[in-house]
Amino acid sequence: MEKVRIGMVGYKFMGKAHSNAYRALPMFFPGSGAKPEMTAICGRDPKAVQESAERFGWSGAVTDWRELVGRDDIDLIDINAPSDAHKEIALAAAAAGKHIFCEKPLALTLEDSRDMLAAAEQAGVKHMIGFNYRFSPAVKLAKKLVDSGRLGQIYHFRAFFLQDWILDPEFPLVWRLQKEIAGSGSLGDLGAHLIDLAHYLVGDMEEVIGTSQTFIKERPLADNMTGLTAKGSSGGPKGQVTVDDATSFLARFENGALGLFEATRFAAGHRSTNSFEINGSKGSVRFDFERMNELEVYFTEDEEDVQGFRRVLATDAAHEYAEAWWPAGHTIGFEHTFTHEMLELMQAIQEDRQPSPNFRDGVKCQAVLEAVERSIDERRWVKLKEM
Amino acid sequence: MEKVRIGMVGYKFMGKAHSNAYRALPMFFPGSGAKPEMTAICGRDPKAVQESAERFGWSGAVTDWRELVGRDDIDLIDINAPSDAHKEIALAAAAAGKHIFCEKPLALTLEDSRDMLAAAEQAGVKHMIGFNYRFSPAVKLAKKLVDSGRLGQIYHFRAFFLQDWILDPEFPLVWRLQKEIAGSGSLGDLGAHLIDLAHYLVGDMEEVIGTSQTFIKERPLADNMTGLTAKGSSGGPKGQVTVDDATSFLARFENGALGLFEATRFAAGHRSTNSFEINGSKGSVRFDFERMNELEVYFTEDEEDVQGFRRVLATDAAHEYAEAWWPAGHTIGFEHTFTHEMLELMQAIQEDRQPSPNFRDGVKCQAVLEAVERSIDERRWVKLKEM
Amino acid sequence: MEKVRIGMVGYKFMGKAHSNAYRALPMFFPGSGAKPEMTAICGRDPKAVQESAERFGWSGAVTDWRELVGRDDIDLIDINAPSDAHKEIALAAAAAGKHIFCEKPLALTLEDSRDMLAAAEQAGVKHMIGFNYRFSPAVKLAKKLVDSGRLGQIYHFRAFFLQDWILDPEFPLVWRLQKEIAGSGSLGDLGAHLIDLAHYLVGDMEEVIGTSQTFIKERPLADNMTGLTAKGSSGGPKGQVTVDDATSFLARFENGALGLFEATRFAAGHRSTNSFEINGSKGSVRFDFERMNELEVYFTEDEEDVQGFRRVLATDAAHEYAEAWWPAGHTIGFEHTFTHEMLELMQAIQEDRQPSPNFRDGVKCQAVLEAVERSIDERRWVKLKEM
Amino acid sequence: MEKVRIGMVGYKFMGKAHSNAYRALPMFFPGSGAKPEMTAICGRDPKAVQESAERFGWSGAVTDWRELVGRDDIDLIDINAPSDAHKEIALAAAAAGKHIFCEKPLALTLEDSRDMLAAAEQAGVKHMIGFNYRFSPAVKLAKKLVDSGRLGQIYHFRAFFLQDWILDPEFPLVWRLQKEIAGSGSLGDLGAHLIDLAHYLVGDMEEVIGTSQTFIKERPLADNMTGLTAKGSSGGPKGQVTVDDATSFLARFENGALGLFEATRFAAGHRSTNSFEINGSKGSVRFDFERMNELEVYFTEDEEDVQGFRRVLATDAAHEYAEAWWPAGHTIGFEHTFTHEMLELMQAIQEDRQPSPNFRDGVKCQAVLEAVERSIDERRWVKLKEM
Repeated sequence: MEKVRIGMVGYKFMGKAHSNAYRALPMFFPGSGAKPEMTAICGRDPKAVQESAERFGWSGAVTDWRELVGRDDIDLIDINAPSDAHKEIALAAAAAGKHIFCEKPLALTLEDSRDMLAAAEQAGVKHMIGFNYRFSPAVKLAKKLVDSGRLGQIYHFRAFFLQDWILDPEFPLVWRLQKEIAGSGSLGDLGAHLIDLAHYLVGDMEEVIGTSQTFIKERPLADNMTGLTAKGSSGGPKGQVTVDDATSFLARFENGALGLFEATRFAAGHRSTNSFEINGSKGSVRFDFERMNELEVYFTEDEEDVQGFRRVLATDAAHEYAEAWWPAGHTIGFEHTFTHEMLELMQAIQEDRQPSPNFRDGVKCQAVLEAVERSIDERRWVKLKEM
Repeated sequence: MEKVRIGMVGYKFMGKAHSNAYRALPMFFPGSGAKPEMTAICGRDPKAVQESAERFGWSGAVTDWRELVGRDDIDLIDINAPSDAHKEIALAAAAAGKHIFCEKPLALTLEDSRDMLAAAEQAGVKHMIGFNYRFSPAVKLAKKLVDSGRLGQIYHFRAFFLQDWILDPEFPLVWRLQKEIAGSGSLGDLGAHLIDLAHYLVGDMEEVIGTSQTFIKERPLADNMTGLTAKGSSGGPKGQVTVDDATSFLARFENGALGLFEATRFAAGHRSTNSFEINGSKGSVRFDFERMNELEVYFTEDEEDVQGFRRVLATDAAHEYAEAWWPAGHTIGFEHTFTHEMLELMQAIQEDRQPSPNFRDGVKCQAVLEAVERSIDERRWVKLKEM
Repeated sequence: MEKVRIGMVGYKFMGKAHSNAYRALPMFFPGSGAKPEMTAICGRDPKAVQESAERFGWSGAVTDWRELVGRDDIDLIDINAPSDAHKEIALAAAAAGKHIFCEKPLALTLEDSRDMLAAAEQAGVKHMIGFNYRFSPAVKLAKKLVDSGRLGQIYHFRAFFLQDWILDPEFPLVWRLQKEIAGSGSLGDLGAHLIDLAHYLVGDMEEVIGTSQTFIKERPLADNMTGLTAKGSSGGPKGQVTVDDATSFLARFENGALGLFEATRFAAGHRSTNSFEINGSKGSVRFDFERMNELEVYFTEDEEDVQGFRRVLATDAAHEYAEAWWPAGHTIGFEHTFTHEMLELMQAIQEDRQPSPNFRDGVKCQAVLEAVERSIDERRWVKLKEM
Repeated sequence: MEKVRIGMVGYKFMGKAHSNAYRALPMFFPGSGAKPEMTAICGRDPKAVQESAERFGWSGAVTDWRELVGRDDIDLIDINAPSDAHKEIALAAAAAGKHIFCEKPLALTLEDSRDMLAAAEQAGVKHMIGFNYRFSPAVKLAKKLVDSGRLGQIYHFRAFFLQDWILDPEFPLVWRLQKEIAGSGSLGDLGAHLIDLAHYLVGDMEEVIGTSQTFIKERPLADNMTGLTAKGSSGGPKGQVTVDDATSFLARFENGALGLFEATRFAAGHRSTNSFEINGSKGSVRFDFERMNELEVYFTEDEEDVQGFRRVLATDAAHEYAEAWWPAGHTIGFEHTFTHEMLELMQAIQEDRQPSPNFRDGVKCQAVLEAVERSIDERRWVKLKEM
């Protein structure tokens, strides 16, 4: 079995999730796909990255990603550093002939993401993007129901990613609230996942129009930040929030379906509601990531007196990935989406094919993000073919 | 179309519910069953009963139920006075050849309830008992699924009637907490409904064993009482609570199913959770009266990847009673169970047959209530055939 | 107590709902507001209207609404005929000095609705519009929480009215699918309710942009129609659907909140999901009319370890209207919203004030409807002050 | 930091869960408690156990548990072999001075479990039993609410463990259906978890009475079995099912609370519903393991108009274990309960104290199991002090 020696850039929230996934593969999916080897991890703080290497199970630790890219004993670069660093690392990795896994969003701009795709294609390497929610078993079931025609023609897709972690005006100005690093706020961070799910489940969009809002325009400067939590310095100096707190948009799909999207960090009570609903001519499905093991499914063809949304627990042997884990009814969590994601990556490498989703999906998502932003700036419908 | 001239004893909570039902029939179920005429209402307080007559739409008001029973222009006596008065009125009504509708519980003892049944049968009158929950469209759907075999052989029935209205120790000693008037506490008031649903949906029981508790043993004397609310005199004299606050029991059904029942007025947060679940060899159903328009339904024969409890909204034309009310998705409430109940009464009279449920069902329920009480007193399983 | 003698135009779905409400008032809300007298009902089919009069409890029946408007013994005209007839009747009623209750939408156009408001104001009569969903106890609770500041500053309002009754392409071309009678499709029929709830709960909108779709463009001609059900003539001639099957739109409120709306008749599995969510700086509320007795409520100020959406059953004495009905935990249904609506009408007449909502609310709603339509036609944001 | 060298007996369902937990500790809970070393795993099939060792990350593999117990380089024996083997291994481990982790049920009989406790205490080793459900963050929250008095005096505990994996009569006779290996059926396998939760959350029981049923009395002999799935040989020879398919029982707690329990493998639609509800004088909590990240919480002291069960997502920093995993709103699954369980084991060893739950809890649970069985056999209430 092929081995894939991985060098990972980033060791915070996503670094932890990816490490856990690589470690889980040989145990839960033995013999399925190439075998990941956790060769080296990279971060700027030498002490912290060394600790993370030990804690997460990486053989080595470095402080310069260029070193990682330059090493012979590395086959794949996993990029989960802040978004503004994605492009440079990916281009270097491609030039060095390394396979690339890149967290979403692919880049800060559509142009950059296209450059990344071109570089990866030219180099002939495998490339994948981290739209991990595709890999929930319940989402896989939704995909199966759509693709097999059991929902009929799709009329509606509505999707929401609702969080509330910056509702407090004293929450500090972390990097996710700064356009130059994050590229975008709720739209790029949360909306990107919804857009990818729309592409995955419904198809391409024809045009979009959106609106956005920054409810809290200034925040305390952050002393430090980790993952999604941070401590601010109340009473101290403030800085400008340069990204959107909330964005919603309408879309028309090429297949005639209507789309409705909202991403916000100002929905009190929603820690991380990542939900969608699809309505088709023969049925509907509903998903909410806070209950990620469940898919609600409705069929118009059910007998008249017992029609209703079914709460399907996607933990049976009939559901993708389920048998690798625990008996029916025993649920999995957030981290498992990454394990399934990395499984696809390892299988694609083993089978010498591009993983899915890959940079093409990243570019497509970026095009919608930028079309939405343009539609907001120019207050008009923007067609995707403009982009 | 036959007219049924009604004399009703009682004008509080149940009196209001029955009056509303009689008034609704000609409007929502025109031409279906005999036509109720609201001839006279009876209560001991002349002023209050007169006001109720006007408010509820009764042609007359009297203060002595004997007068009502004695009148020639009355065909049916509707008894919803406190439980300790049921028997005497029912016997007199039967003797006078009147049809009888009696609220549950039929009587304070099994013996009394048997006397009532015997009297009604001897008199050849129609008799009905007020197990109104049978008449929820969602419960009717459950019944249909059981009877048609779509749930297969029944293995389990578990049922709960959970309330919290006397959780506060300062809630006063209303009549429902006094054995000599109410006969029983949570068991007779709430459990009786569960027992009837068990009989209706699963069948007869073979044996039972229970336990009960009175958590608050003394309460302020009540100044007055209406329906389920009352004002106590905090700091004033207290009296003994002589009924059970909570009772639970196990049952074995004649068909081999296991039963589990709990009735309590001490379940914080449950205003009136009247719920049951049935598990059969081919499927299951779940019902909760707080969401009375819904029945959750599961079938083992559904395709493997989309098995799950369906949330069926019993408001479609395919569901009993639904077309008489509003379009699909437009719900009904508590009071409608009484309208459907009185519809059955009027149809039975029109068709010259006994309504269902009738005093036989009341006696059967009383037998279980008394068997449970005996099982508690004697700390042993009690067979229904003992009773 | 003042009596209000009512003449009602229309006797189908809404005529039944209104009649039931007028009948319920004296029983459940005695002495509260003027007393409705069901004087006469009007419809074009003499036999059918006569039957409805008897069934619903109206003293008389006529076939020409002009006769009704002209009668001295009528104080109030209740208009629930198809939408294209609203204006003419309302103008005549105002001219005759009658109070007016008009079902939504007020008229087919904004201009017409303004004429109706002007006429009613000039005549000095009471005028009300039938936005019945305001009168759900759970919605009243939402209103109380917003107005009292318990939700803080409002950031988001998202609302959906999802139905599926015309999903079948063979469902016939009933009047609700014809622009010349209905004025609008899902937007005017369903969206109008959402818009009114937005006005009621959040405030005025600044600008909107929408999109809409007619998924099934031709349908069998209807043989007849009642309420929301109808029988089509499959295989027979077809006609053009001239209204929208689905419409969604974005809104920006004057207070800075973002709005998101969708109305559709193509959401499989949704019989009548009329739902909204409000997110504020201090809390959130969620409502779904299919579970109309419930409001989900979240407060940011709850202790950290027990924060979560509360499922509040709005049937306690602490909730508006609840004490008039049944004990806590005993639910009400769709029809009760009309009873509460007519209660407001009768109270307003008694107190000599305009009811709420009235024609001003109807005009305001119509302005948004027309702004959305213009935004669809002209593919641009439309400001409400343009209208 | 102390190291704990582990030898594990068993490598199927539970072996996988335990291995995963040991591996997760250094990554997610670094520096917390002793450090587990996965020294050797034991199973009878040499090839299979060797494969499991590699797959799960154990340094060595042996085929005789005696060898494991005899090794100097092992500090702790983890017993997750079938239940009939627990006692012998535990006694040997204690005699060898090893710490012991034992899966539930501790033994096949109360007497055996007492012997095990005595042996462990005499040897002065640490001992723990695998009641993993205690370690759900939502259950920890329930415990905190009870212990801090926020629920007041406890009146009710009702608990259900509902599964449906042997509903099909053709499902084969796996070891869990054979009394001589499993000791008990649904009661010991599922009910044991409920009993432990009752002890943990409410306290000791005074007396119990139960009933049980074996619905399918003969089943095809199993060709093999893994975890909870198996393939039967339809049409082939059958064997006797010697354990209960379903058991329910009533309990009275020493503190006056009433208990109600049901464990069944015949509840169609329930893959693994492990749920309980506690009602106290000041509030209630509800838990369902199929939605294990959630606890529903109700407080009587909430303001009157917003009382309702709160859906608390136990993923905030305010909840136990949560910060070690993912940001708020990002859920965990079944396997994480084992990680937390092993964390307690490692912390107890580090702190030189007995872990909780330990063999004392296992004995206490076994006493209830045996009391329930006796109550079924003798058809009478059995007091725990009899046992």
